[in-house]
Amino acid sequence: MKKKIGVVLSGCGVYDGAEIHESVLTLLAIDRAGAEAVCMAPNVDQLHVINHMTGDEMDETRNVLVEASRIARGDIKDIATVKADDIDALMFPGGFGAAKNLCDFAVNGEHCKVHPEVLRLVHEFKDKQKPQAAVCIAPALMAKIFEGTGTSPVLTIGNDADTSGKIEAMGSRHQNAAVTETVVDVENKIVSNPAYMLGQSIGEVAQGIDKTVAELMKLL
Amino acid sequence: MKKKIGVVLSGCGVYDGAEIHESVLTLLAIDRAGAEAVCMAPNVDQLHVINHMTGDEMDETRNVLVEASRIARGDIKDIATVKADDIDALMFPGGFGAAKNLCDFAVNGEHCKVHPEVLRLVHEFKDKQKPQAAVCIAPALMAKIFEGTGTSPVLTIGNDADTSGKIEAMGSRHQNAAVTETVVDVENKIVSNPAYMLGQSIGEVAQGIDKTVAELMKLL
Repeated sequence: MKKKIGVVLSGCGVYDGAEIHESVLTLLAIDRAGAEAVCMAPNVDQLHVINHMTGDEMDETRNVLVEASRIARGDIKDIATVKADDIDALMFPGGFGAAKNLCDFAVNGEHCKVHPEVLRLVHEFKDKQKPQAAVCIAPALMAKIFEGTGTSPVLTIGNDADTSGKIEAMGSRHQNAAVTETVVDVENKIVSNPAYMLGQSIGEVAQGIDKTVAELMKLL
Repeated sequence: MKKKIGVVLSGCGVYDGAEIHESVLTLLAIDRAGAEAVCMAPNVDQLHVINHMTGDEMDETRNVLVEASRIARGDIKDIATVKADDIDALMFPGGFGAAKNLCDFAVNGEHCKVHPEVLRLVHEFKDKQKPQAAVCIAPALMAKIFEGTGTSPVLTIGNDADTSGKIEAMGSRHQNAAVTETVVDVENKIVSNPAYMLGQSIGEVAQGIDKTVAELMKLL
């Protein structure tokens, strides 16, 4: 039986959803590791719809699950239907969607709220000591979810002082890392990597994500 | 100076735009080949907007260039502004967008029409004998553009008899190929590969696209 790796998407596009390169590179790394990706997303409207050419907000409403299904070629689940027992590991690609749709860290920083089904699933993973990974800005989401649990995960989002300061304000420990490096918290079974928080090319980001998935598989 | 490879996108999502995995894998292969990707798309409304979870048409209008900019992380050009002299090679990922937005092969088969700026740029490439590549359904677009030019390119879309019959009806020659194989027409400098016309996994599709980009670079 192939190991099943849940991939939590947050829309489709770096400025209002899941970062597309990071998401596809995650699916590729999982396939090459001999595992099966199980894509999922929350069934909720996006916080924003952004024109990615201009950066302007568009007067539209789009659903996170429906847009994320573009990356998954239609094969996606509502995260509300997924239990930790169904899958072996969980991975969060980045993009503003992780900080706008899975939680609202992009707006409210360390005082953000997390989508209830994302919160539930990560807590299930934590309680069952199953491994998780988060790249780009998604480690900030993990910091919020672990806040107040009595554990203080070691995470990286690269080296941005403002973001790492907020991660520490939520009770996690931040460790600087390069785009091709991972930070592995063996005790809490969390792997993190900066991805496009630092990546200057898709090739660099692919190296980091390949390494993240490899470390995640080792924790299984 | 890095070689510049134009990547013609047709939206963002397999059922109404550019196939996202194929597009990202193309950008990755170009970066790993030491070349620079130059993303472009036509500034035109999509033929359809499809809910990728259900397959149903949505009552929305989306612009091909604006949606494609999601895959390009905002770094994209209107194809109308691109000349063959600006770039060294041209590559078309697939997805229904190649057959709905770059031309209307999905609706009108061998009687399809091609977007005028796509037609112009491919003809410039042909006239200057610069290399081009097309994967998935995009070789059907190439067949239409080469129809009546006095040359009969050798192309592959895999082994689908209906589609290959239409490609031959437009005057090209079809050669069956597996997902990890390329067909290289050295005389006309066109590389093609079936990608998700046959691919059962993202890893297989990545192998085919890596090979396509490698063959394209050899033709430079």
